[in-house]
Amino acid sequence: MSARLLYLPLGGAGEIGMNCYVYGYGPLNDERYIVVDLGVTFPSMDGTPGVDLIFADISWLEERKDRIDGIFITHAHEDHVGAIGHLWPRLDAPVYARAFTAHLARLKFEEHGHDELQIKTVSRWPETVTCGPFTVGFAPISHSIPESSALVIDTPAGRILHSGDFKVDENPVVGEPFDREMFEEISKGGIKALVCDSTNVFNTNPGRSESEVIEPLAELIASLDGMVAATTFASNIARVKTLAEAGSKAGRSVVLLGRAMRRMITAAIETGIISDFPKTVSPENAADIPRENLMLLTTGSQGEYRAATAQLSRGKYLGLKMAEGDTMIFSSKTIPGNEVAIGRILNSFSEMGVETISGRDDIHVSGHANQPDLSLMHEIVKPQVVIPMHGEHRHLREHAKIAESNGYQSIVAPNGVGVDIGGNTPKISEYVETGRTYLDGSIQIGAMDGIVRDRIRMAMNGLVVATVIIEDDEPLGDCWCEVRGLPETGLSRAPLVDVLEEDVNQFLMRAKKKTLSDDDKLEDDMRRIIRKTTQEEVGKKPEVQIVISRLSS
Amino acid sequence: MSARLLYLPLGGAGEIGMNCYVYGYGPLNDERYIVVDLGVTFPSMDGTPGVDLIFADISWLEERKDRIDGIFITHAHEDHVGAIGHLWPRLDAPVYARAFTAHLARLKFEEHGHDELQIKTVSRWPETVTCGPFTVGFAPISHSIPESSALVIDTPAGRILHSGDFKVDENPVVGEPFDREMFEEISKGGIKALVCDSTNVFNTNPGRSESEVIEPLAELIASLDGMVAATTFASNIARVKTLAEAGSKAGRSVVLLGRAMRRMITAAIETGIISDFPKTVSPENAADIPRENLMLLTTGSQGEYRAATAQLSRGKYLGLKMAEGDTMIFSSKTIPGNEVAIGRILNSFSEMGVETISGRDDIHVSGHANQPDLSLMHEIVKPQVVIPMHGEHRHLREHAKIAESNGYQSIVAPNGVGVDIGGNTPKISEYVETGRTYLDGSIQIGAMDGIVRDRIRMAMNGLVVATVIIEDDEPLGDCWCEVRGLPETGLSRAPLVDVLEEDVNQFLMRAKKKTLSDDDKLEDDMRRIIRKTTQEEVGKKPEVQIVISRLSS
Repeated sequence: MSARLLYLPLGGAGEIGMNCYVYGYGPLNDERYIVVDLGVTFPSMDGTPGVDLIFADISWLEERKDRIDGIFITHAHEDHVGAIGHLWPRLDAPVYARAFTAHLARLKFEEHGHDELQIKTVSRWPETVTCGPFTVGFAPISHSIPESSALVIDTPAGRILHSGDFKVDENPVVGEPFDREMFEEISKGGIKALVCDSTNVFNTNPGRSESEVIEPLAELIASLDGMVAATTFASNIARVKTLAEAGSKAGRSVVLLGRAMRRMITAAIETGIISDFPKTVSPENAADIPRENLMLLTTGSQGEYRAATAQLSRGKYLGLKMAEGDTMIFSSKTIPGNEVAIGRILNSFSEMGVETISGRDDIHVSGHANQPDLSLMHEIVKPQVVIPMHGEHRHLREHAKIAESNGYQSIVAPNGVGVDIGGNTPKISEYVETGRTYLDGSIQIGAMDGIVRDRIRMAMNGLVVATVIIEDDEPLGDCWCEVRGLPETGLSRAPLVDVLEEDVNQFLMRAKKKTLSDDDKLEDDMRRIIRKTTQEEVGKKPEVQIVISRLSS
Repeated sequence: MSARLLYLPLGGAGEIGMNCYVYGYGPLNDERYIVVDLGVTFPSMDGTPGVDLIFADISWLEERKDRIDGIFITHAHEDHVGAIGHLWPRLDAPVYARAFTAHLARLKFEEHGHDELQIKTVSRWPETVTCGPFTVGFAPISHSIPESSALVIDTPAGRILHSGDFKVDENPVVGEPFDREMFEEISKGGIKALVCDSTNVFNTNPGRSESEVIEPLAELIASLDGMVAATTFASNIARVKTLAEAGSKAGRSVVLLGRAMRRMITAAIETGIISDFPKTVSPENAADIPRENLMLLTTGSQGEYRAATAQLSRGKYLGLKMAEGDTMIFSSKTIPGNEVAIGRILNSFSEMGVETISGRDDIHVSGHANQPDLSLMHEIVKPQVVIPMHGEHRHLREHAKIAESNGYQSIVAPNGVGVDIGGNTPKISEYVETGRTYLDGSIQIGAMDGIVRDRIRMAMNGLVVATVIIEDDEPLGDCWCEVRGLPETGLSRAPLVDVLEEDVNQFLMRAKKKTLSDDDKLEDDMRRIIRKTTQEEVGKKPEVQIVISRLSS
């Protein structure tokens, strides 16, 4: 039986986030697999209330765990590595990453009590790791976090280049510049497939270098009086360093606020990514320094409620408090969906008299390749096929169109669509059931389990709880109703619970023995009455929980 | 006692939306009032799940309803007129508006069964209406809906100009151009206060004219094959007309899809705003027309789930179905907070192979004055004070800064802050309790009533219902638990309800009579056990509803 070369996204090809890609090689039903990235995406009140984290559903992989030869992490962003602590036990294969990424992955393993030796540090290309039929190298590529890598994946059927997240930046401030010659060299023998980041495909301008924000930020910060705070992604070590240096040069003491900020800078120093970060002071010692000599670097550029930026906008955080005349800088862009949360923070600062600077193009650049950069990448690699990844459906589709207009074959393969790229033309070879897994408290639940759906229904419709005691097929006493999340009084101006109890009690008095003796029927009838009465009284059809207690004399 | 001239925002000065402003004149505690606008804002799953509409809390006004001489509506956008049907009975004062606005307000009165004669149509400035100490005129001003007006409010203490929503557009396609000379004339005798729209204060470019989108839209639509659909705010009659004419010129039959689209165009024709709208065909008749000859104009440019655009993205709508090769045009911008809903629609169309065009600056212009236009307005009116309105706190603050840099006094007065503008300097004169009222089903509830809070808590934490029967201070049988919105099994791998029932039953068996005889104590103890067990089992602290039924033998 002939071998196939399979590309199968389980996450990341249908959203920006939650990356999880599978490559397979071998005869049908006997392929060996490697997994690229195990990321998370974040829940929202709209759609996933109460959920803590969202992962790709890896059931398909788990059923084949004995055939997984390795897990490769391209870089340390949460949407690529965030699920490793939660999902690793279900896959139980060695994890490969470069030093900085491996360092942060080990912290996650430590939190979960997994064996840290399962995480192997790999040096940069041309070093490679061989896992079953795959030989994999980490080719440095510029992005907004250190040691991001494209993966060079060699198989008996040819070479794949998996771009990871990337931008074309020849001066990324921290870490390795985009190395065109290296990618040309890698591609010289022919690339079967370029599996390629699609995040910024709709931006038609050439991408800008991280180094372009240094001057504007330095000028801005030098011009400010009062306390200055700035927020950006903690993992953007280059930006954090630029901000810290600008503050330091302006005579300010630098304070890192927020767990991620301290963890990332520590990781970057411990793994040798940076050696010359300005001296920082602790929040406690900052209290003794005049406010005009302070520069806070804070987590929470996306408006996260518990992060340092949001806490400062609500008042004191670790003894520090911003006030009239101070300035808060957002050196970041707003990820769609976070506009309202960030707006709330900007308004809170406005009420305090704190100046805010946000949405300015000169003090932020994206970490992803724009449309012209994607075309450049196609041209450098000249693959047999471009497979767009890391995007919503519209990003994948647009990227495929661009690849085709550049003269390359392309295919849109959303999550769950397996593509055989072994031949000369990519072929859809299977449809795999995929979806999302929610971390809900301490339990992993399925997105389709109905648990979160029930919570959303209670939030939309409110709840009525009705209890009745039935003794020998006769109601014993009255029905009791309680309401939650519903108006207390309705159109009749009597308490809603009273109206509900009266209607249910009247029904119970008239109900036939056949109904009273049948839990299902009794429950259905009571639910119908309760929904009808609530609709009449307050215009809502609530969720209903009926509890029937049966006694026998 | 000397008379005061009061400005008091109850809504709109703290958000973009939900406009409601009060002007008062007279001696303290005996002022007469007029109300400007009674608008709504829209709920979201994040913050107000299950809520239908949001209004300003008008309790303060309601307590003084015998002193309200009139309600003036500047224009027919929902955030200015949307609450009139719901709140009018609580104020019970005559409503004044221009013909188009009055027409739409009467439809709302009709739906609510109010007396339509209470809505009086007023002609444009220099016609005026006298209400108590106020004489009010509707001065036409350009915006994104016909017959928008600034209000010229004359009082014994001087003249106020209330801008309403506006832009500076000398060629608005439909309706009256911005008339600089008229506003200079109005301002000649001196303006005490310019109360001024702040929506676009952060945009530093001069505003663009509605007429600028005609050419690009015509070119775009002429270039397309297949079925074409376009969405914009239905109330933007100029845009809808531009789109319809572009479609018609390209040989397409125009179909209006969505209730608001039909109602707005009908209102515009009936009130004489437009006379030459292209002929439309009904959705039923459209089925017989080749798809490449159709142009759909659809509601739902903000991603509203039930609107025509969203329905088309999910499949058929009134017999019409978009397909590969068709194009959906968003001639609109995304209001912050709607990014995810719109993204979902774009992705659904992408999956269907339908091209989408969105986020293009050349086919949409805003209806609000940008920063340079606001400065121009200040200069035309030369008021004693600029009072920013219609904005979040940060918009009001920025607008005040700009006014001051233009050489005018300014004051930030958020909702509930009353300002006496009678003297030479504005003075904060009172703080009024304000807030939001939710229309929840058919009932108006207070934002702080705890009803929606309880719904959010159920959505975040899930719910456990526990019932126990107590007979003569002894538990009769076992406790029953039901869970909603919680994982079915937890760490111990037994059903969560079983673990809960076991723990509660053990507690009940050991409980002292003192506890069993005291409902409050019993409930507290049971709740604590249930929360603790659920936390241990699934890592969540649920909401708990306890029902204790007491029997006596």
